[in-house]
Amino acid sequence: MLDPITLKLNIDPLVLQALKEDIPEEDVSTNAVMPESVSGHVDLIAKAPGIICGLQVFERVFTLLDPATTVDFKVQDGDAVEAGTLLGVVHGDIRVLLSGERVALNYLQRMSGIATNAHRMSALLEGTGITLLDTRKTTPNNRIFEKYAVRTGGGRNHRTNLSDCVMLKDNHIDAAGSVKKAVSMARQYASFVRKIEVETETLDMVKDAVEAGADIIMLDNMDHDTMAKAIAIIGRRAKIEISGNVTAEKIEAIKDLDVDYISSGALTHSSPILDISLKHLSPDGKGDAYER
Amino acid sequence: MLDPITLKLNIDPLVLQALKEDIPEEDVSTNAVMPESVSGHVDLIAKAPGIICGLQVFERVFTLLDPATTVDFKVQDGDAVEAGTLLGVVHGDIRVLLSGERVALNYLQRMSGIATNAHRMSALLEGTGITLLDTRKTTPNNRIFEKYAVRTGGGRNHRTNLSDCVMLKDNHIDAAGSVKKAVSMARQYASFVRKIEVETETLDMVKDAVEAGADIIMLDNMDHDTMAKAIAIIGRRAKIEISGNVTAEKIEAIKDLDVDYISSGALTHSSPILDISLKHLSPDGKGDAYER
Amino acid sequence: MLDPITLKLNIDPLVLQALKEDIPEEDVSTNAVMPESVSGHVDLIAKAPGIICGLQVFERVFTLLDPATTVDFKVQDGDAVEAGTLLGVVHGDIRVLLSGERVALNYLQRMSGIATNAHRMSALLEGTGITLLDTRKTTPNNRIFEKYAVRTGGGRNHRTNLSDCVMLKDNHIDAAGSVKKAVSMARQYASFVRKIEVETETLDMVKDAVEAGADIIMLDNMDHDTMAKAIAIIGRRAKIEISGNVTAEKIEAIKDLDVDYISSGALTHSSPILDISLKHLSPDGKGDAYER
Amino acid sequence: MLDPITLKLNIDPLVLQALKEDIPEEDVSTNAVMPESVSGHVDLIAKAPGIICGLQVFERVFTLLDPATTVDFKVQDGDAVEAGTLLGVVHGDIRVLLSGERVALNYLQRMSGIATNAHRMSALLEGTGITLLDTRKTTPNNRIFEKYAVRTGGGRNHRTNLSDCVMLKDNHIDAAGSVKKAVSMARQYASFVRKIEVETETLDMVKDAVEAGADIIMLDNMDHDTMAKAIAIIGRRAKIEISGNVTAEKIEAIKDLDVDYISSGALTHSSPILDISLKHLSPDGKGDAYER
Amino acid sequence: MLDPITLKLNIDPLVLQALKEDIPEEDVSTNAVMPESVSGHVDLIAKAPGIICGLQVFERVFTLLDPATTVDFKVQDGDAVEAGTLLGVVHGDIRVLLSGERVALNYLQRMSGIATNAHRMSALLEGTGITLLDTRKTTPNNRIFEKYAVRTGGGRNHRTNLSDCVMLKDNHIDAAGSVKKAVSMARQYASFVRKIEVETETLDMVKDAVEAGADIIMLDNMDHDTMAKAIAIIGRRAKIEISGNVTAEKIEAIKDLDVDYISSGALTHSSPILDISLKHLSPDGKGDAYER
Amino acid sequence: MLDPITLKLNIDPLVLQALKEDIPEEDVSTNAVMPESVSGHVDLIAKAPGIICGLQVFERVFTLLDPATTVDFKVQDGDAVEAGTLLGVVHGDIRVLLSGERVALNYLQRMSGIATNAHRMSALLEGTGITLLDTRKTTPNNRIFEKYAVRTGGGRNHRTNLSDCVMLKDNHIDAAGSVKKAVSMARQYASFVRKIEVETETLDMVKDAVEAGADIIMLDNMDHDTMAKAIAIIGRRAKIEISGNVTAEKIEAIKDLDVDYISSGALTHSSPILDISLKHLSPDGKGDAYER
Repeated sequence: MLDPITLKLNIDPLVLQALKEDIPEEDVSTNAVMPESVSGHVDLIAKAPGIICGLQVFERVFTLLDPATTVDFKVQDGDAVEAGTLLGVVHGDIRVLLSGERVALNYLQRMSGIATNAHRMSALLEGTGITLLDTRKTTPNNRIFEKYAVRTGGGRNHRTNLSDCVMLKDNHIDAAGSVKKAVSMARQYASFVRKIEVETETLDMVKDAVEAGADIIMLDNMDHDTMAKAIAIIGRRAKIEISGNVTAEKIEAIKDLDVDYISSGALTHSSPILDISLKHLSPDGKGDAYER
Repeated sequence: MLDPITLKLNIDPLVLQALKEDIPEEDVSTNAVMPESVSGHVDLIAKAPGIICGLQVFERVFTLLDPATTVDFKVQDGDAVEAGTLLGVVHGDIRVLLSGERVALNYLQRMSGIATNAHRMSALLEGTGITLLDTRKTTPNNRIFEKYAVRTGGGRNHRTNLSDCVMLKDNHIDAAGSVKKAVSMARQYASFVRKIEVETETLDMVKDAVEAGADIIMLDNMDHDTMAKAIAIIGRRAKIEISGNVTAEKIEAIKDLDVDYISSGALTHSSPILDISLKHLSPDGKGDAYER
Repeated sequence: MLDPITLKLNIDPLVLQALKEDIPEEDVSTNAVMPESVSGHVDLIAKAPGIICGLQVFERVFTLLDPATTVDFKVQDGDAVEAGTLLGVVHGDIRVLLSGERVALNYLQRMSGIATNAHRMSALLEGTGITLLDTRKTTPNNRIFEKYAVRTGGGRNHRTNLSDCVMLKDNHIDAAGSVKKAVSMARQYASFVRKIEVETETLDMVKDAVEAGADIIMLDNMDHDTMAKAIAIIGRRAKIEISGNVTAEKIEAIKDLDVDYISSGALTHSSPILDISLKHLSPDGKGDAYER
Repeated sequence: MLDPITLKLNIDPLVLQALKEDIPEEDVSTNAVMPESVSGHVDLIAKAPGIICGLQVFERVFTLLDPATTVDFKVQDGDAVEAGTLLGVVHGDIRVLLSGERVALNYLQRMSGIATNAHRMSALLEGTGITLLDTRKTTPNNRIFEKYAVRTGGGRNHRTNLSDCVMLKDNHIDAAGSVKKAVSMARQYASFVRKIEVETETLDMVKDAVEAGADIIMLDNMDHDTMAKAIAIIGRRAKIEISGNVTAEKIEAIKDLDVDYISSGALTHSSPILDISLKHLSPDGKGDAYER
Repeated sequence: MLDPITLKLNIDPLVLQALKEDIPEEDVSTNAVMPESVSGHVDLIAKAPGIICGLQVFERVFTLLDPATTVDFKVQDGDAVEAGTLLGVVHGDIRVLLSGERVALNYLQRMSGIATNAHRMSALLEGTGITLLDTRKTTPNNRIFEKYAVRTGGGRNHRTNLSDCVMLKDNHIDAAGSVKKAVSMARQYASFVRKIEVETETLDMVKDAVEAGADIIMLDNMDHDTMAKAIAIIGRRAKIEISGNVTAEKIEAIKDLDVDYISSGALTHSSPILDISLKHLSPDGKGDAYER
Repeated sequence: MLDPITLKLNIDPLVLQALKEDIPEEDVSTNAVMPESVSGHVDLIAKAPGIICGLQVFERVFTLLDPATTVDFKVQDGDAVEAGTLLGVVHGDIRVLLSGERVALNYLQRMSGIATNAHRMSALLEGTGITLLDTRKTTPNNRIFEKYAVRTGGGRNHRTNLSDCVMLKDNHIDAAGSVKKAVSMARQYASFVRKIEVETETLDMVKDAVEAGADIIMLDNMDHDTMAKAIAIIGRRAKIEISGNVTAEKIEAIKDLDVDYISSGALTHSSPILDISLKHLSPDGKGDAYER
């Protein structure tokens, strides 16, 4: 669940912006044929199996257009559903249901797609002690939605942005002169509430990083043997992150390694959507005969 | 190419917003180790084959941060590239190169992924006389980028938003009472510059739509035989759109049908990104020896 | 009637902006003498005959300031009223009625002025088969209000903005090389839902435009005889628009011509307002004796 | 002249907003036929006599789209011009000239229309010692442009908004209990830099207002005789404003009265535009032969 | 009391901005432990004696986050309170109370600090006939709050911004050539509702200013004797303002001088906050035993 | 130094907002007497001793108004200056210097005041091994400026906002049921890059916090003896923060305690400004004789 304050302060403005993107002037089709409000309802149905995520955002699209709209949800974020599952029923002015449909589904499908993918990857990691992490490879102006979807699917979040964690890469280290100097400069510069992560490419860098007191050490593109040595060098004095594609083969290959995290950019940049649609829109009082 | 006016009015504000999403306060890692400007350059390299799209947006990320940044592009939007192709070289303050990298690549990778997918689908349609269209199933607050990527890949755009074309679906038709009434109401209500499309499910609806003077008729989920009959009924008095997954099998099955357009939501909602990265960042004057 | 979604997404932000323009800090006069809320009502009265337009915008000014304000309207948008007609009664906190009065009337008077003018011009066209159109010669940041007012008065809207219809003028045609090339390039470039209009100055251009498949042809500044020839050339293969001042004389001169549309910039750029005012503001309970 | 700080802080944001209103996505016509920048120029020509106003705003439209655009003005704000006068020449990317034309002219024509009207009304007042004032009856979100146009035409500005001057009307006075109490409360409440104006309807109110120390007294809808008496009561202890239509007849009727100001809402709400257009757009180097 | 229109139009946007400054994503601490809404209440208590100011702003922080939050105030703006006074009780979702606490107190403490200081300075002036004024030396983007706090504490406001009053300083006078010319140019240029103040440094300038008809004359940094002469020269033909630190000694030194105003920048730029805190937060129904 | 990216993305928008707060329409005084640009310069002078902070923000005020303005600084942020020190000279259009003066100084004085106070408090802590921290008790919409000023003065920053660090207070612990549960829930919920701080009031809480693995433990309002015991319990397994007024007495009393941090709200909420002013504004070419 997204908390109501985040929804109000940080979700609503983006949802409103998305609505204006889709309705810069008016929904001309709906307005042409429906000059008056007609009360109705529509079913929200999963068309493929997956993990649902973004129900509150879906609802917000409609209630921002018309606070009188209500959604009777049958599931909640994080639930695994089958194709055909009724996720909820939206009630309200049919004009609102029609005009908000696309934006509401665009959010819900994308977020559920990411949650489904995160869930699948997390399942692969089960029993390994390794936690799945996301990255900053998110869709521009959608990070808050996508990071929440990762959590909903069972992954965890890495840093939110460039301001809230130090991550020292090769160029930072070059600029500082050495890993130790870089960590020391970071500790001097950043707020003491920021953790410091160092991206390492060699065992020398790993050694430097752990001795410099890095909180997290990323093993970048190392082979199995090198990673094993790195882990030994670190000796649990820092958290260890590896990155890369999370596949069954990859997991098999690293499951004996005592690392804490594996991060995946694909989680947010290449998850296909989960197919979900609004069906059976009908005016109230039309009865069961109204089937489409 | 995106024209400079669109870039200024409608792209820049979104890019700035994405930069603030990633840098709400500062790039703490870079600032910790680089208190002063250091001039340098970095290579932009494709890591997989595909169609490049979004170079101007990529550039804009850096020039918005620092107008002194320059990019020397080796390719242009729409070019097919191989894995390993050098796409360009970015020159500027290394701090700017580091801080803008993620947002710049998030746009470029996504847009190139969509262009690559559009190109692949368009290729499947070659020789059929059918044109590939996108839909409104775009990522919220990214529509302008994604629709441009579809064009760049060889697809064409359907309507941009709910205000710029009439599309009458079953619920609109129900509300009006009949296809004819719905088309007539739309013609009466909407600006005369708007085309009118009708989504049809039966041959009766097709007949009504064409007689009502619809500009475009969508054949929704019809089998091959029904589509053939619909096409005969329409007799080229309206443009014909079908929708659905664009696969080799599907194309084979419809290539004998005289339809104008096939639209695909997957183009924008489920294209995986094209892998592109910034490599070999180095301060100016470090020479060729500086390799990473 | 403006639909509630358009009001929420696209009207409210402009109305709020207008309120801040008029009340950047506070209504110092009202606050000086009314420290407390006093419930009251005020009459909305037409002071000249005309077509009323903008009642929802008028109401929105007050409900945005205080949702408890209500307006009991006696007429609706599009109604013809006489001088002295009571259009409605606004109830609410008198401070809100005083502070919102000017912005509310500025919108209502301007929109009603345009509707009144559109109605007058449309009446002149009655029986000719020619439809009155507006242009993009609207007041900056007021287009949505003014285009609605044109519709309310009986006119129709031409394109809303530069993105939603192709209109090829002399310079576009020069750049392309010929009318045919220009139309062909536009058909290639623009979404297939965009209609293409060509502005023509000679019969050769008309011929080219109709053969190139233009959807709409504008006859720019031609004399009666040339227009007649142009119409014959077009042979109803495209819609025909003429532009210019809509006066009784002009109409008389063209009424034998089979054209579809006449567009008028004056509709939106030079319509005088309709005089409407708020009168008899009085606190509730003061009774009939309170007359001003 | 508008000063550069006002242009930057308070004009540019509104001009940008107007540009986005007209170009929410792209200028599809121009982009279809002009994929590349072509340098050119266009003449700005008055088509009717009047007072020019808004040249900087006109220029700003183009320079905001492309800072490389230049305008070579032949006149300046406040100049009286004849029909046919060349006002200036705009140089730049023809795409920018085409895309910005409408917004630039919409501002310039409206502002010049108001300046022309203000000049005409001021001329009627010449020799009377009465100064022409505007009101708050301006077009929403255009006040800063319209008030400047009034000044340019020779009028003067009344208060800018509800926050910067106290104006006590009948309802304020009722709420306070008496004119004296209202003035006293205002003096107590408002910043001492605010002047206080009282709207009076009777000679008793005039007497109260002047005794209460009002800085400005408005004689609202009084006949000539009553005004004469009011003026005598005031005895130059306060500035005197009357309001109403400024016509030759009206001026003749009041020219013997010793009042300071006459305010006119029509100045800003009902001035017709001044017809101005861009002509002879041509690419650089096409020579004199290129005439349209 | 701030009026509801000012709160809605001009306070709420700043408060929302402040909330986003403090909660750019979520209140991670609260969300970690409180996934569900829990109803509760918290006491607002003064920890030092002073003048309370900003209660509506304090309340607005919570109601903007959740309209269901209520505050039962025991005091009102302007009340003098002792250390330990219960100012009110806030009821609502405990998550909202926790997340909004800091921003709400940041406003309330600062505004009360300024009101307390203004009250203290005003008290020093009691009996002198001199009124305390603020300046434009306010915290950026907090002027509306700080100027209200000055009024609440018993001071009065000088001009709100650079647009609403003319103040001619030495450089303005130099540019004009003389005090008289400067005043004359200002009278010519500015709206007639603007008062004109002249900052004077010598008796010659005072003489010039009063003869030029300045509404307000500031005696800048003059000694007692020179001020006395200046006052005599002015002869009550203009309001007189002096500026400087308001201390008991300073007041003693000037109390025989017949000046109208003394302005103090320290009021808004250097008032320490008034210590106020939220205490005894507890879920509803936990009873009296819950004490912390 | 503030880095240029932070200036562009996160400082400029706030500075522009502050400029609009002070110049909602125009600088009427300057415009009245200076219709044309006049090039000039002005000295920036410290009027009291202290630590300078905010020079870039000061400069930005002017360059945002007019990019041609330049500032020749004689000192840099963090420098200790005496009363009378020339800090820099601003060159540019005198109108810009006059119109931007107040906003530029409001920022510079406030930031320098905080830096001066931070420096003073840090000096008191010298030799104790305790680092000075700020809090979230900052002025609304000024946090980024104030936190930078704390760093400039020699303090360090605590968390920036509610999203970037977990701080568990009594109510969070109550909601969770125990310190251990709260820490565990936070570790489960928050990104692994967030540190977790626990506010403790008793030795039992301290024990629980350290055993739960809190990264930082705040000793809230404990006496010396209790703090000593707490420190022993913690045994350097977590960072230790105490809070409170930083005075010479307080420091003396705690200097034997092995704590890491002391945080002070007064740093940002109650630091008086450092008096700095612009003097000797004069047009270029007026020579040395021009002294004021």
